[in-house]
Amino acid sequence: MSPRFQPIYDLAELCFQRGITQAVLCPGSRCAPLTLAFARHEGITGRTFSDERSAAFIASGMAHETQSPVVLVCTSGSAAYHFAPAIAEAYFQEIPLIVFTADRPKEWIDQYDGQTIRQTGIYGSHVKKSFSLPEDYEHPDAVWYIHRVVNEAISLAKEYPQGPVHINAPFREPLYPAKQEKISYTPNLKTIQASSLSSAFSENESLKMARRLEKYSKILVLAGQGDFNKELSTSLEKFSRLVPVVGDILSNLHTNKSTIRHADIFLEACHEDIKKSLQPELLITFGKSILSKNTKLFLRKYKPQEHWHIQPTGAAADTFQSLSEIIYAEPAQFFKSLLSSAGENNFLSQKKENFKRIWEAEEHRSQLSMKHGVEGEFSELLVLQEFMAHLPPRCNLHLANSMSVRYANFIGLEAEKKGIHVFSNRGTSGIDGCTSTAVGHALCNETPHFLLTGDVAFFYDRNAFWHNYPLPNLHILLLNNHGGTIFNMIDGPADVPELNTFFVTDQRLSARLLCTEFGYEYDCLDTTKKIKNAIQHFLKFDGKTKILETISTHQQNKEAFLHLKQKIKKGYET
Amino acid sequence: MSPRFQPIYDLAELCFQRGITQAVLCPGSRCAPLTLAFARHEGITGRTFSDERSAAFIASGMAHETQSPVVLVCTSGSAAYHFAPAIAEAYFQEIPLIVFTADRPKEWIDQYDGQTIRQTGIYGSHVKKSFSLPEDYEHPDAVWYIHRVVNEAISLAKEYPQGPVHINAPFREPLYPAKQEKISYTPNLKTIQASSLSSAFSENESLKMARRLEKYSKILVLAGQGDFNKELSTSLEKFSRLVPVVGDILSNLHTNKSTIRHADIFLEACHEDIKKSLQPELLITFGKSILSKNTKLFLRKYKPQEHWHIQPTGAAADTFQSLSEIIYAEPAQFFKSLLSSAGENNFLSQKKENFKRIWEAEEHRSQLSMKHGVEGEFSELLVLQEFMAHLPPRCNLHLANSMSVRYANFIGLEAEKKGIHVFSNRGTSGIDGCTSTAVGHALCNETPHFLLTGDVAFFYDRNAFWHNYPLPNLHILLLNNHGGTIFNMIDGPADVPELNTFFVTDQRLSARLLCTEFGYEYDCLDTTKKIKNAIQHFLKFDGKTKILETISTHQQNKEAFLHLKQKIKKGYET
Repeated sequence: MSPRFQPIYDLAELCFQRGITQAVLCPGSRCAPLTLAFARHEGITGRTFSDERSAAFIASGMAHETQSPVVLVCTSGSAAYHFAPAIAEAYFQEIPLIVFTADRPKEWIDQYDGQTIRQTGIYGSHVKKSFSLPEDYEHPDAVWYIHRVVNEAISLAKEYPQGPVHINAPFREPLYPAKQEKISYTPNLKTIQASSLSSAFSENESLKMARRLEKYSKILVLAGQGDFNKELSTSLEKFSRLVPVVGDILSNLHTNKSTIRHADIFLEACHEDIKKSLQPELLITFGKSILSKNTKLFLRKYKPQEHWHIQPTGAAADTFQSLSEIIYAEPAQFFKSLLSSAGENNFLSQKKENFKRIWEAEEHRSQLSMKHGVEGEFSELLVLQEFMAHLPPRCNLHLANSMSVRYANFIGLEAEKKGIHVFSNRGTSGIDGCTSTAVGHALCNETPHFLLTGDVAFFYDRNAFWHNYPLPNLHILLLNNHGGTIFNMIDGPADVPELNTFFVTDQRLSARLLCTEFGYEYDCLDTTKKIKNAIQHFLKFDGKTKILETISTHQQNKEAFLHLKQKIKKGYET
Repeated sequence: MSPRFQPIYDLAELCFQRGITQAVLCPGSRCAPLTLAFARHEGITGRTFSDERSAAFIASGMAHETQSPVVLVCTSGSAAYHFAPAIAEAYFQEIPLIVFTADRPKEWIDQYDGQTIRQTGIYGSHVKKSFSLPEDYEHPDAVWYIHRVVNEAISLAKEYPQGPVHINAPFREPLYPAKQEKISYTPNLKTIQASSLSSAFSENESLKMARRLEKYSKILVLAGQGDFNKELSTSLEKFSRLVPVVGDILSNLHTNKSTIRHADIFLEACHEDIKKSLQPELLITFGKSILSKNTKLFLRKYKPQEHWHIQPTGAAADTFQSLSEIIYAEPAQFFKSLLSSAGENNFLSQKKENFKRIWEAEEHRSQLSMKHGVEGEFSELLVLQEFMAHLPPRCNLHLANSMSVRYANFIGLEAEKKGIHVFSNRGTSGIDGCTSTAVGHALCNETPHFLLTGDVAFFYDRNAFWHNYPLPNLHILLLNNHGGTIFNMIDGPADVPELNTFFVTDQRLSARLLCTEFGYEYDCLDTTKKIKNAIQHFLKFDGKTKILETISTHQQNKEAFLHLKQKIKKGYET
């Protein structure tokens, strides 16, 4: 007779058959059948993290890095809720997760039993779907259902837009196999594969689209957040010879020399008449959120006549309050098809208007202002300038919310950095799991990983390190200014007397002791003359997790930032 | 003209008028109108904590300690989800919270704006109700609605069973008042008070109830978790002269000399024929969850003929699968009324059966076995025995899940400890926020607070200390065995090869560096001969937060536990 939990054990095999190789298994007793199923499966790497909040962000980082769903398991009770912030982030960042929450059978809910809450549908509308497994497996239909649900969950998680799927799994006691009982997996389990036939625009459609472009003399392409995609990047490089293509650091288009990467800078600094000349007639967008607040404000004020958003399916965000058409297509394929049908002739009026040149001129002006960049007193910007300029050609760069990602976008990456992939939790833009997400990436990939983070994000998520897995390929540049410095940078909070107590919220920790706790290498950077050497050492990978902590004051950083902005303003006076 | 956010500022005044004096304000920008409203109100103490997860448990501890709702505020986005574990705990532990989550106006949801998730109803069925405020306040009905909602939320949170209420509050920009703008509160705001008329059983009802007791010769009273309540305690002391009253350490009935406090011990150790003789005919219960697993197993096997549960209103848990009647009454009042009508005559058959004596005999046997208690090698039990015996007569004792609360219940408190109030997060029984909850209590009360915790619970929730409020009245006894030792203690996981990796999950941290980080006094305890002095010093309050860390192995603790259990078993052989 097969063990009572055989249908549950087989879930690991089904997941493996469907291509899943990574599982994050948080400790607990109620989840034992799932933990054992995944931990014992030879094709699946199981890891454990005691803080579920961090574990879920780690799983999300792993899924993002491996471009494949990751299994996430927790025990019953409040544990499930600690997954929620990462699940919301994964939902909006479109990262596939298969989330199993173990549960008591429903008869024992609300009966004052320990670790029992109301788990059904607990993630609300932040999962693509939520399933509940049966608690009894005697009837063959129950087994069929369990297997079908997992197949459906995996298909759903992988389908555009990818995202987390929740499976609540109630288990009756006893939860553990008998002593020495072996767990095996049923051979030849039936899977339900999901595949899509590749489709392409018909030549006719492409020609029609190309002809539609002729109407516009000012076409602007704007990329949202997206992973590096070679095909898309190549098409856009060609396309950018005809129209301006704007992308911030999270668009991963910095490798294209012609990408307009400093829009956030010049759209803040330039005069209204320049802004008017930059106004597009047709805006074509793709990808997820736009980092640059100035780009958003500009386009909401200087609205295009038409705004097309390219995405495979579903509802699109109307980020600039001007959306006029959603074109259901893969962006890479859209631009490729268009290029095959459209020639310079389709852009004659664009050429006449010199629209591309105007955007390029502004980009060029910003690049000039940034060239000699930050000077003067020690500041985070000064450190970052050195760091960004000397990044190795091949690495993953993780940017924490909120000042870190803004700083990095401000400085930008050079086109020569061909192998730098940039990541940031911009699904919900929270500071909550930035370190854990980077840890998840680093665990699945041997290339060097850098995390740029502020002190609030860093200490908030310090349990990212509370596990037993080495991270030799993760180096962290920690900008410690003892509080949420963004509140000093934006208007509003800076003017209220509660600034330091309730907004910046001074915090006193340094990473020095944390490094001792976890055996990481620690270095502290607080003067200008130390920058070169410290960064040089920090960029070297020699088998150790390194944390380089810059210590600076809000005042120093605010001044450096204002100084640079003045310099940029000056670029408009000559 | 009054400021646009006047209806929001007035919420602070309304809360104050309804008796709220404590607010926990997590940092953020979207929540600025609420933060400023509560921070500036002279009658309300506002505190800030950067980790929302910890902040919510702190707020819950504050509400429990002050017996009054506490306001909890966070910014928009995933922040709200970090409140969820504490909200679930507060829901099941029946602690009143008014949870404000700031939000973007609904037009900006799903538009790729930062820190924007789907917050409406985000806490599912773990809040008593969830409200959404309007985003515009021009229409007077909108202002009336906002004020009414807050009044309703406070009334709901305070009504039995108390619990958290959620108010989602979308705010349009600009979020901050103009420079130097003063925030004032509208005078004579209309509140909607809620009060209940005190009611008592009629004499007739009491007599009827007393006569019903005559039918039973074996009546057992069993108390669940509950705060210390003088009236209840006095009634039960009298009642326990007639029938056995069982309560574990979380029932806060230890001050009654006659309370049967070692049921968990003897119901595990005694033979089946004794168990049979302990079986009640009528079980009367009140309060929340029962800690003792052995008591639950005993009553589920030896079911009473009748099980009455006493609570003011609502659905009752059927913990022993034998519930026959819910009596809607305040437990204190129920026992008081009953005592006024029932005399020894109503318990004649109980007296004849000697049922009370049988329970007392078992309690006595356990007390004898425990008297000389733990001996032998260094172990956590040995430390705890010394600690529990020397607790000051007046203090709050916080017990973390999962081994800490079990250990403490095992050892028990003596009846002489009249002023010890015992707390534990048994709503969801999670390890997640035990330290933060104790911090919340300690911030609102100058009496000495002790927290007994294991290493997993302690490091999980280490952000409980990440703030700038001194905790001179909090001393923490940390049982560090480098992992979740409960998995060594229970059957099941101990037999699988994955025990250490996926269940115990070895963790290597010690609290020494944490104490350096936060300026706490640290002491380490790892040998038997140090115990007396270390505990003596630990129990002394001299203005410093103290952490006493015991370092022991799973093996040591398992052996001590088994040794003590054998000793108890031996008590049945003589």
